[in-house]
Amino acid sequence: MALSKKPTTGMKDILPEEMEIRDYCIQIIKETYGSFGFTSIETPAVENIANLTNKQGGDNEKLIFKILKRGEKLNISGAESEDDVVDGGLRYDLTVPLVRYYSNNSAVLPSPFKALQMGNVWRADRPQRGRYRQFMQCDIDILGEVSNLAETELILATTTTLGRLGFSNFQIRINERRILKAMAAYSGFAEDSYESVFITLDKMDKIGMDGVKKELVENGFDEASADKYLALFEGITDAKGKDAVTALNSLADTLGEYLPKEVGISLTEIIEAVEATKTADFDIVFDPTLVRGMSYYTGTIFEIAMPEFGGSCGGGGRYDRMVGKFTGQDVPACGFSIGFERIVMLLMERGFKVPDKKGRVAFLIEKGISGERLSGIIKTAQEKRDEGTKVLMVRMNKNKKFQKEQLEKQGYTEFEEFYMEELKH
Amino acid sequence: MALSKKPTTGMKDILPEEMEIRDYCIQIIKETYGSFGFTSIETPAVENIANLTNKQGGDNEKLIFKILKRGEKLNISGAESEDDVVDGGLRYDLTVPLVRYYSNNSAVLPSPFKALQMGNVWRADRPQRGRYRQFMQCDIDILGEVSNLAETELILATTTTLGRLGFSNFQIRINERRILKAMAAYSGFAEDSYESVFITLDKMDKIGMDGVKKELVENGFDEASADKYLALFEGITDAKGKDAVTALNSLADTLGEYLPKEVGISLTEIIEAVEATKTADFDIVFDPTLVRGMSYYTGTIFEIAMPEFGGSCGGGGRYDRMVGKFTGQDVPACGFSIGFERIVMLLMERGFKVPDKKGRVAFLIEKGISGERLSGIIKTAQEKRDEGTKVLMVRMNKNKKFQKEQLEKQGYTEFEEFYMEELKH
Repeated sequence: MALSKKPTTGMKDILPEEMEIRDYCIQIIKETYGSFGFTSIETPAVENIANLTNKQGGDNEKLIFKILKRGEKLNISGAESEDDVVDGGLRYDLTVPLVRYYSNNSAVLPSPFKALQMGNVWRADRPQRGRYRQFMQCDIDILGEVSNLAETELILATTTTLGRLGFSNFQIRINERRILKAMAAYSGFAEDSYESVFITLDKMDKIGMDGVKKELVENGFDEASADKYLALFEGITDAKGKDAVTALNSLADTLGEYLPKEVGISLTEIIEAVEATKTADFDIVFDPTLVRGMSYYTGTIFEIAMPEFGGSCGGGGRYDRMVGKFTGQDVPACGFSIGFERIVMLLMERGFKVPDKKGRVAFLIEKGISGERLSGIIKTAQEKRDEGTKVLMVRMNKNKKFQKEQLEKQGYTEFEEFYMEELKH
Repeated sequence: MALSKKPTTGMKDILPEEMEIRDYCIQIIKETYGSFGFTSIETPAVENIANLTNKQGGDNEKLIFKILKRGEKLNISGAESEDDVVDGGLRYDLTVPLVRYYSNNSAVLPSPFKALQMGNVWRADRPQRGRYRQFMQCDIDILGEVSNLAETELILATTTTLGRLGFSNFQIRINERRILKAMAAYSGFAEDSYESVFITLDKMDKIGMDGVKKELVENGFDEASADKYLALFEGITDAKGKDAVTALNSLADTLGEYLPKEVGISLTEIIEAVEATKTADFDIVFDPTLVRGMSYYTGTIFEIAMPEFGGSCGGGGRYDRMVGKFTGQDVPACGFSIGFERIVMLLMERGFKVPDKKGRVAFLIEKGISGERLSGIIKTAQEKRDEGTKVLMVRMNKNKKFQKEQLEKQGYTEFEEFYMEELKH
């Protein structure tokens, strides 16, 4: 009969202190993205198992929490494999559900469609510190906008949100899949080896130029190609704002016919527009080493780098051919995801407290106070609540000092005490 | 490779129009309950299967979405029953998770603990119109408060919230499990038949006094007991506010020693305190026919009745012995749940529109506008957004009239148009 008190392996109970920060972030995020015309949508946590296992999810497909069939459809003793007993699974990201949602509802959705999704996803990853099997993702996507207005708006919406959440001095690192490809082609790598080259390039921040060269050669690539390739990156790293545009144009000149002209022009437009209109305190950085793992990106790619947090704190890009893979008809698409759990963690670590509108008051009411006297006290509380003050009504404990200390930890800074004999007050 | 476009059976995609109302409700609910000192908490969607199948959930336990074991722990071909292949399940309510959460974290939680939970639950019910297999529940609970301040606060917080959501002219119907029992005892029913009597009584609003009497007699109860029992209900139905107190006290007098004195006194206090301090437009009604299904209630029980919606729109009560059943130590507990999905449905049906802070403007930008000109337009948009206006930036379509009509449907009432040649503006 006894419950196991612990949450299920790898998942966590969220305590009030963290929840307050999460609720605050959710509100700021919804409000800010809303001001950019993004509309919230929601899909079920459960998707048909076939939708989750069609190879769009890469390694995440190995981590699915699968759902057992029910009723007559389930035949355990006759089953030979998982496929025989499951019909659903918990979503491992919000992209597959978005694409399904869009194809299911496109007739009634505006075009372009600007979607905001905040929702939990589940992955049966090996449990480790700070990573949980249930976590919230926060994605914005624009479907049906072919121009780079999509990229600019996504970057501005995301950075404005981060700014309002109190983050500054971060970077948006930006690149283009077609620049990656042009650089590889220019250097003489064969087209079917690009993905392998990019996997090595992606390690640049960890192993440096020399490490990348060494790994390329070890992987059997021509040393001359490796040298030519690495020379392209010289002096570009961390080129910000106007310098980013200069570095980009210089690289485009070098690449010549390997890079379609419009790629350089479009990326320049995005960088210049963001630089000219940004409201948060961040730098936009052209980073030709930025790869981003997911191979479904077709154009611009970007990532948030936070000085306080080693790795990436979100990212995204253009994926113009993904909807088509599912529906048969391509739809231009571009998205940006912020690392919600990391943002909450960073706010917790810096001791962030959610600002109260009008403070918090605790009413300590001596035991025995009832009837009209109690109603009078409640009336006072109701008036304060109506003005936006948080009012907690509690019975007074014998150890009032300890009780107040505990309440102070919950953010109650003011106290009013009510006694049976009014004079004592 | 093709996705199935439909959501999984019995679950639904939530469209932007509904989402806007849901987000609005969530915000009002969190803000209002917050002002009463309730703190948000969250538990994982997945619970250990043993916690979900220990008979606390009644019939809901038959409706669990069960989660397949993973990796080495799973042996499909050797399995004989569900128990062999599952280790988790999706929660079917928020009460079992709350009790687990409380016992897991009570050392760091305040006492009394006022919790707000808003979260999805899953039940593999037979799909039917307007009922889905994933739906949101919204519960407030106070754990550790033995006095009726808990009931009063729960009712005030719930009704204040409903008022802020635009509901009026509703009822809070209230009763006490011990009054139900005293009435049954007074009428001569045997203690082991109470639950059966209450199941029949629960049908009063559908089958009336005569129907209840008929069913009691059919079920083999003594006709004299049935008559004595039904006479107790005469003239009490729909006694509001002061009349409720009069009716309650008159009933308590009749029941005499069958009803502990403090029950009548406490219920009177709750009714009087709510009546004296309520801020929303509703009636508190003493309803001795109110049963509420869940047998874990130990004291006060209550329900929201909405004129616009036939059935109950939420309810709750005191369940002082439930925590103890799980942990071995009783903790006084009282909760109130509002029917979130029903509230959203009612708002949708009455054509409710979420009020904008500062309106919505759509910027229609002719194709080809780029560079500094575009940055200038974005800058204007950013300034308006900063003031709280929703600004949608979109490329102008060839059929501008149609485009505007579509945007009007999304709530955009103002338009600004930007052309390549400025003079055309």
